[in-house]
Amino acid sequence: MDKESVAKAILAQEKTALEAWNAGNPSGYLEIYHPDITYFDPMHQKRIDGWKNMQVYYESIRGKIKVEQYEIIDPQVEVWEETAVLTYNLFCTSEGVPYHWNCTEVYRLLADKTWKIIHNHWSLIQPAVESN
Amino acid sequence: MDKESVAKAILAQEKTALEAWNAGNPSGYLEIYHPDITYFDPMHQKRIDGWKNMQVYYESIRGKIKVEQYEIIDPQVEVWEETAVLTYNLFCTSEGVPYHWNCTEVYRLLADKTWKIIHNHWSLIQPAVESN
Repeated sequence: MDKESVAKAILAQEKTALEAWNAGNPSGYLEIYHPDITYFDPMHQKRIDGWKNMQVYYESIRGKIKVEQYEIIDPQVEVWEETAVLTYNLFCTSEGVPYHWNCTEVYRLLADKTWKIIHNHWSLIQPAVESN
Repeated sequence: MDKESVAKAILAQEKTALEAWNAGNPSGYLEIYHPDITYFDPMHQKRIDGWKNMQVYYESIRGKIKVEQYEIIDPQVEVWEETAVLTYNLFCTSEGVPYHWNCTEVYRLLADKTWKIIHNHWSLIQPAVESN
């Protein structure tokens, strides 16, 4: 598959997972997480390692997230060999509150030719910026 | 080079760049950034793209950072093909203020066999955690 097709497929996959997430359903991300996923977000003091630990976390918040509106800003997918790195800014509103996120997803190509996220890093842009 | 040696080399390289950074010198990171580097931190509302833009940013803060003490927590280097992903938590104190960071660095192997950072994501763990 050429790089452009990989980028398109990964972006489509992300949109599907994100829209499920926005409706409180984390299964979309769990389906595209690699067994060796590592994960950062602002709410955890340490990195989460491995699919099973992500499942525990995501199941604990299933049904609790409600995002009314989102915008994926300037997505970029860098592709080489068996690696793709998706980065974008996300603007969303959840129960009326606006959030500005930085998002990194590192994908690895599996033997079955599917792309899975082996590292995911979500972070908030500083509160001073968020409240603007 | 086997995976363990790659991991060791990357960690050593990170420590060198970080210690220079802590003394106000960003050159260590600029030296190991890939021309196509993309970069996130909490202070910028958008991703920074490309080595030249990183140079502009880093030169603007040269000599202004002073980190007295740091600890790299649970570093992990995942290596496959021409890719290595370094992740860790960083605890540091800068002019007496404690900070807890999440750090992601995606490395790509160049033709000359050096490893360069093609994506870097720094984020702060939530203020509630930081102040503990």
